[in-house]
Amino acid sequence: MAENKKLVEQITSRDEDFAQWYTDVVKKAELTGYTSVKGCMVLKPAGFAIWENMKAELDRRFKETGVENVYLPMFIPESLLNKEKDHVEGFAPEVAWVTHGGLEPLQERMCVRPTSETLFCDLYNKDIQSYRDLPKLYNQWCSVVRWEKTTRPFLRSREFLWQEGHTAHATAEEAEARTVQMLNVYADFCEEVLAIPVVKGRKTDKEKFAGAVATYTIESLMHDGKALQSGTSHNFGDGFARAFDITYLSKENKLEYVHQTSWGMTTRMIGAIIMVHGDDSGLVLPPRIAPTQCVVIPIRQKAEGVLDKAGEITAALKAAGIRTKLDDDNSRSPGWKFADQEMRGFPMRIEVGPKDIEQGVCVLVRRDNREKIVVKIENVAEEAAKLLETIQKDMFERAKAFREEHTFEAFDYESFKKAVDEKPGFVKAYWCGELECEDQIKADTTATSRCCPLIGGEAHDGDTCVCCGKPAKKLIYWGKAY
Amino acid sequence: MAENKKLVEQITSRDEDFAQWYTDVVKKAELTGYTSVKGCMVLKPAGFAIWENMKAELDRRFKETGVENVYLPMFIPESLLNKEKDHVEGFAPEVAWVTHGGLEPLQERMCVRPTSETLFCDLYNKDIQSYRDLPKLYNQWCSVVRWEKTTRPFLRSREFLWQEGHTAHATAEEAEARTVQMLNVYADFCEEVLAIPVVKGRKTDKEKFAGAVATYTIESLMHDGKALQSGTSHNFGDGFARAFDITYLSKENKLEYVHQTSWGMTTRMIGAIIMVHGDDSGLVLPPRIAPTQCVVIPIRQKAEGVLDKAGEITAALKAAGIRTKLDDDNSRSPGWKFADQEMRGFPMRIEVGPKDIEQGVCVLVRRDNREKIVVKIENVAEEAAKLLETIQKDMFERAKAFREEHTFEAFDYESFKKAVDEKPGFVKAYWCGELECEDQIKADTTATSRCCPLIGGEAHDGDTCVCCGKPAKKLIYWGKAY
Repeated sequence: MAENKKLVEQITSRDEDFAQWYTDVVKKAELTGYTSVKGCMVLKPAGFAIWENMKAELDRRFKETGVENVYLPMFIPESLLNKEKDHVEGFAPEVAWVTHGGLEPLQERMCVRPTSETLFCDLYNKDIQSYRDLPKLYNQWCSVVRWEKTTRPFLRSREFLWQEGHTAHATAEEAEARTVQMLNVYADFCEEVLAIPVVKGRKTDKEKFAGAVATYTIESLMHDGKALQSGTSHNFGDGFARAFDITYLSKENKLEYVHQTSWGMTTRMIGAIIMVHGDDSGLVLPPRIAPTQCVVIPIRQKAEGVLDKAGEITAALKAAGIRTKLDDDNSRSPGWKFADQEMRGFPMRIEVGPKDIEQGVCVLVRRDNREKIVVKIENVAEEAAKLLETIQKDMFERAKAFREEHTFEAFDYESFKKAVDEKPGFVKAYWCGELECEDQIKADTTATSRCCPLIGGEAHDGDTCVCCGKPAKKLIYWGKAY
Repeated sequence: MAENKKLVEQITSRDEDFAQWYTDVVKKAELTGYTSVKGCMVLKPAGFAIWENMKAELDRRFKETGVENVYLPMFIPESLLNKEKDHVEGFAPEVAWVTHGGLEPLQERMCVRPTSETLFCDLYNKDIQSYRDLPKLYNQWCSVVRWEKTTRPFLRSREFLWQEGHTAHATAEEAEARTVQMLNVYADFCEEVLAIPVVKGRKTDKEKFAGAVATYTIESLMHDGKALQSGTSHNFGDGFARAFDITYLSKENKLEYVHQTSWGMTTRMIGAIIMVHGDDSGLVLPPRIAPTQCVVIPIRQKAEGVLDKAGEITAALKAAGIRTKLDDDNSRSPGWKFADQEMRGFPMRIEVGPKDIEQGVCVLVRRDNREKIVVKIENVAEEAAKLLETIQKDMFERAKAFREEHTFEAFDYESFKKAVDEKPGFVKAYWCGELECEDQIKADTTATSRCCPLIGGEAHDGDTCVCCGKPAKKLIYWGKAY
């Protein structure tokens, strides 16, 4: 027991020092690694496999809505980046510039894409002529670069992996419908697969994407009470189309500008999984995203028949489609293996020893609440599958209850400031709609407007701005954020 | 008929102008697109979907051999690239350099990865301590950049997509075995999935990878008789390990250098599919890699029951796992649709009209040889599945026969030069092993040594070098290459 205690002791207590706990979990679960490339992370097998599962789930959902995958260049010539004014202002300060190709200086420097609106516009300008060419529903999986000063694994790094969808439509209505549709895809994915409850909402003008008419967002709450922007979907109207001259000939033979959207989700969500579900023993992965869903750990594995039975159980689970590993390492004790499994966040383990086998049973142990369930070996695959579903559901419900317990309301500025200061979480408060108040709140509390929720976001007669006291226009979720 | 004739006429004849034919096919099948980023290609949905299928097939095969996926930074600091002498000499002249991050110049410039040996070494230096950490069997899917002067879609572009496997092993024997194992994975993939026969062989010292002890290659033959290097697998010995100080403590408690390999395959293989299988009507995709395997085309689709029956057939094929589309576009004639299907290379179409329906049949038309097969509608899914397998097999056999007909032997320099000059294809000829003769052959004929075949590559007593006439060491496949 000393050995596995030591394993776990290497993880800082979550309540004592959340930031250090996070770093410890990322490291001990071997999700990322480091090279001499400053500010850029390595996704090691355990981390990358989570991304692969996210990718498969999202990609399937995108394709069900008609989206097609493409790949565009990673470089953007400076003149192309400069074409849309708001956009270049938003991104130019944080891009990496390529100035030499081979041994020669480039005639025009190029940045490594921080996002690819300008490239998709360049392509659409060439590829869209007629209403028959619409809609374009393109997506790409790639990495992007933003030259951040301070970085943290998954949450902020100079290069990160993401997908970026870019669509072009005949009408403003279609573009708006697609923007909201993709927000819903993200929200369903987070809740159903990552077991992370989200608030769907719209960003204020201050917080919206550079060049967008409207930015929709899903916001989730981490265990330390900070908010994390978890996915965004932007409606560009015809702003980019005007800047890049993307027109089509309508059925009525009129030349019209297209209406565009973009939407993205990133490896940052691996950070969200850690910060929503993790505990003092390490990572806790929701079953649907876990690369390994179950580890079978033999007890007294040298005893006759134990390893065989553990192998049979492993095979039965695999045959039922459960991602299962047998941990038959001779040089480690079961206690060490339990601690290791908990640290890596595998949702379930199965313990099986000579006494269990005598009785024809084995023990399923849940990672999320450590509950032990004795089941008949003959039913193990069925019971394991059921239990994984239960774990998935319970993890979501627990995260949702946590968020609800950490969502507060404030109707005057003193209680608002007190709430932000003393109660980590979201604070719901009315707002007049003026940038001045939004800036004031940020200056006074460091909280930012996360979003105006899609449901219940309108203010009613008599509601007043929590900052200036004037009539309110919107309800806003405020919070300190990553 | 005029309409579909016109469609096809837009493709140059393959035998008249192979290069223009290639460009036409790429364009008409909508595989790639262009932006203002010079020398970099866009993979449009039809092109990217082929890559997605290649990726899925290869990834599964890699994982079956124990390989795990990771992701490493896209940037390489100059000092890191410089660590292995041969390697930097090979790549430095063709990399793109990032010199500024955000608004500030970088302290040290970084290149965008042309390949990631140096980064994997940097990671392995940190992550490998003991024999317990070995082997490392990592792979990544990413894009790389090489600043080429002249570019062609798929075959040579400044940025391309690939996978790069990088492994580290305890012994030289394990590294060599892995190098050959991955070559075999590539060869099987090319032959079984892409229907492209390959010659497995070893590169001469002149042609091997910068920093490798041995480079293995698979070489395929395009329809114009030029060779295409289709996948390479490198054994680095402990050269990189010495340059990057990657050591491990052995079971015997001795500090040893690791032995490494790397291996890669790229989007270039989409070019190979085009150039091996395509014809004057456009692309011809092998069924196993085709994103759309079958198009159902209703004849007289406004006639009662036709569209319903075409829909039923489509559903039956989909249910059988055949990637099928129904082309029910009202504004196009069947003839136009046939030409369109042929241009895009879908391996099979199904025609069904009122007369067919009366008789309870439909017509399967093969893309590869245009053969028509009438089948009962009730058996259509089964017949279609069988036919796709036949097409796959026939395409491979046809390509193999073509390669055999275009593989020549030469025993003296005059007939060698004549063969290279007059008979497009491989020329098999003995070689003394001296760089001087290899250079001479290239200077005289533009043919390069493609490989020494793994089977039958040794010279026997009495065999003489085709160039200098001295005793031969090896049999070499020579050819002009892409």
